[in-house]
Amino acid sequence: MDYNKINDNIIEKIKSAVKGAVYVGDEVNEDFFHDEMPIYGEGIPECLVDATCKEDVANIMKICNEEKIPVIARGAGTGLTGAGVAIKNGIMINMQSMNKILEFDEENMIVRVEPGVLLNDLAKACLDKGYLYPPDPGEKFATLGGNVSLNAGGMRAVKYGTTRDYVRKMEVVLPTGEITEFGSIVSKSSTGYSLKDLMVGSEGTLAIITELTLKIVPNPKYIVSLIVPFESLNNCISTVPKLFQNNLNPQAIEFMERDIIIASEKYIGKETFPKKLDSIDVGAYLLISFDGDDEDLIDNTLEQAAEILIKNGAIDVLVADTPNSIKDAWAARNSFLEAIESQYKLLDECDVVVPVTKIADYINFVNKESKSYIFDVKSFGHAGDGNLHIYTLSNEVDKIKQFKEEVDKFMSIIYEKAYEMGGKISGEHGIGFGKKKYLKNFEGDVNIRLMRAIKKAFDPNMILNPDKVIAISE
Amino acid sequence: MDYNKINDNIIEKIKSAVKGAVYVGDEVNEDFFHDEMPIYGEGIPECLVDATCKEDVANIMKICNEEKIPVIARGAGTGLTGAGVAIKNGIMINMQSMNKILEFDEENMIVRVEPGVLLNDLAKACLDKGYLYPPDPGEKFATLGGNVSLNAGGMRAVKYGTTRDYVRKMEVVLPTGEITEFGSIVSKSSTGYSLKDLMVGSEGTLAIITELTLKIVPNPKYIVSLIVPFESLNNCISTVPKLFQNNLNPQAIEFMERDIIIASEKYIGKETFPKKLDSIDVGAYLLISFDGDDEDLIDNTLEQAAEILIKNGAIDVLVADTPNSIKDAWAARNSFLEAIESQYKLLDECDVVVPVTKIADYINFVNKESKSYIFDVKSFGHAGDGNLHIYTLSNEVDKIKQFKEEVDKFMSIIYEKAYEMGGKISGEHGIGFGKKKYLKNFEGDVNIRLMRAIKKAFDPNMILNPDKVIAISE
Repeated sequence: MDYNKINDNIIEKIKSAVKGAVYVGDEVNEDFFHDEMPIYGEGIPECLVDATCKEDVANIMKICNEEKIPVIARGAGTGLTGAGVAIKNGIMINMQSMNKILEFDEENMIVRVEPGVLLNDLAKACLDKGYLYPPDPGEKFATLGGNVSLNAGGMRAVKYGTTRDYVRKMEVVLPTGEITEFGSIVSKSSTGYSLKDLMVGSEGTLAIITELTLKIVPNPKYIVSLIVPFESLNNCISTVPKLFQNNLNPQAIEFMERDIIIASEKYIGKETFPKKLDSIDVGAYLLISFDGDDEDLIDNTLEQAAEILIKNGAIDVLVADTPNSIKDAWAARNSFLEAIESQYKLLDECDVVVPVTKIADYINFVNKESKSYIFDVKSFGHAGDGNLHIYTLSNEVDKIKQFKEEVDKFMSIIYEKAYEMGGKISGEHGIGFGKKKYLKNFEGDVNIRLMRAIKKAFDPNMILNPDKVIAISE
Repeated sequence: MDYNKINDNIIEKIKSAVKGAVYVGDEVNEDFFHDEMPIYGEGIPECLVDATCKEDVANIMKICNEEKIPVIARGAGTGLTGAGVAIKNGIMINMQSMNKILEFDEENMIVRVEPGVLLNDLAKACLDKGYLYPPDPGEKFATLGGNVSLNAGGMRAVKYGTTRDYVRKMEVVLPTGEITEFGSIVSKSSTGYSLKDLMVGSEGTLAIITELTLKIVPNPKYIVSLIVPFESLNNCISTVPKLFQNNLNPQAIEFMERDIIIASEKYIGKETFPKKLDSIDVGAYLLISFDGDDEDLIDNTLEQAAEILIKNGAIDVLVADTPNSIKDAWAARNSFLEAIESQYKLLDECDVVVPVTKIADYINFVNKESKSYIFDVKSFGHAGDGNLHIYTLSNEVDKIKQFKEEVDKFMSIIYEKAYEMGGKISGEHGIGFGKKKYLKNFEGDVNIRLMRAIKKAFDPNMILNPDKVIAISE
């Protein structure tokens, strides 16, 4: 696929077609060259446009489709796989100025937003009115357009599901420049192929989202967290399915090994997790939250949970039920990534997902496998849904080539193991540019052929966010 | 698109390629010529094959793809839009013999089934083990393959979601004859385009499902139902959003007008709904269920619900909390369709969906509009999600042509109104053959073009269930 470069004539066309600011060449800020994982490479947009409305997006798209120029929509740039990087250059459309919450429909419990609204801003606006927008990925300063494009998950996914479950409707601009709508504000539909569900998680490769209608729920009145130390990761993880089978419906269950807690507590300067209890060394922890509207029921749930946890080998069950103690309990978990980033100069990661019942076996496999590489490996993750964040970490910056090669080998091996166990490459970070090769290897030629044909159905000239998720050509 | 006819040579090829029985010409039972809505026309399969395994399906598909012969997979034939009818003749694959429950994985709370398993059989098998398969469409003797292909909804959708929310993974045979898998047993994924979600609701037009992995949940210990009479439909419906805003999380909320209750009670020979209370004539009812594991919490919820209902104009709140009284309360609702069918010889229907807040306005519009046609109109539906079943009914069998023409006019008008209000053509019955024209009119050329291109991506020769959802060509 040959793309054209931008020239003065095209710049003029774009300037006269849009209301937003247009930056060309050196005027484009370097922040737009990469996402939060620069190790996957940079891409320099030839031109950056601040979109102010759907017409801006549609007009750019029409020009680029005609001129065969790559286009990419960009949110807050918080991605972790290079999905929002202009690998093939061309025009980048910055969606961050389209950041208005357009409508709060409390009767239908939906909210209509522009795609550049930050998750954090929507979350706050909802809480102010007594509602909860349940998706809660670690990165609160991502745009909602980005969240939908990645089907972002987060801590509360175990009870509330992922972003997909909260997208009712979207307005999009197709690569042809046409504006259309997928889905509707109603909760139930069997009205043709679900184009909306195809868009969720398509990483900005099929169309550009210009408006979203999202479902919200009443904010639960009570929340309680438990810190649960175990002697080993094995009995820690094997307890998790029992909580589900007893229908205790936790809002979040995270597991963490001793090492990562120590590193994180050191980083935040506060210790909330016990390291030794009854002369037993703690090897791993569960951090669990329950929410609900009825205090008695939560107490009841806590009692049942404690009984199950102790019966299955928990050394203790520590309850955090005040806003401050809950905040403290989660502070270490919420700082994992920053703690890691502060310690290492070279970093790569995967967010593989395996069945909940296989987490311990998988982590044991990963830990064993990790011994033969130049990097350290640290893991943590969502015990409730098997979504694991595995980091490869090194400070040997002069060995970056070797680091990359070894990470590739390591990732291939651990992805293969995940697929063997019935898992997938990514639970919430997506494929982007960085994981494309693994998608092809593990999803197989038939599924990749279907994905490419779907991409072509939306984008006959393959101009929109090219070379992401699937390669431009075989 | 020109399709070929079956000949002796092809019959021989098929017979030697499959393990299941092959029926040709007159050997094909007439039951396979139509679904439950024969008014949309018949289609006679030239050949019917009982599939016994995925290889049977794949082998037939390869032959048909090579020979350009239409293929259609058929479950229990309980559809309502002609989706399972061999409109273009060709080969029908009967999936009903692939009816084994293959695996109950209690730790991961999933069940693996062949697509011919009946909903009723899975529901029972789950209950026997203390689990619930939440999707609960009215028709219990549909196959799960059919349920997934239509994204079946049902009464419990308001709390538990639709079939889509319970499909984790599927094995399918593509129109090319290739066997592949979409999705995985894990609950969370951002691993390329969601081909699984594209399949759900695609009405057997993209691939044939040969295995499903479905999510199950622990069966709630308690269930309570309320019969709530109101003076008018308007205050009946306007109460519904208030239950959601107070987070009461009902399992089901159905609304019904007085007339349809009277007809249904007459049919079943039992009266459970009061018609007059405190000298007020009842105009409409809500029938509500709550479920949960905690008896006190349910009592609490009932109290709150009763308060909200009375405050918003309910004449009374009648509680059914024993298995028998609950059964009685739902008996009339569950017999609506049979009651209607017993009274009328000509019947057509739609299952339009509108925002919950617009139901009363919409029903008023429909009732007013219905006055100028030769048929009667009866409506009922899922108040919790705005999915309405609207029946056009007549006994003037000699005026079938006029009936069809007037139904078409009426449907066009009421679908247009639904779209105006932010609704969709179908909440759970799908598009099939019968609603194709409306899909095209109301979804618009752009979305139809995308759907057709997606169809082509899966099925380059357009042999699989042709002329359903979208027309074969423009």
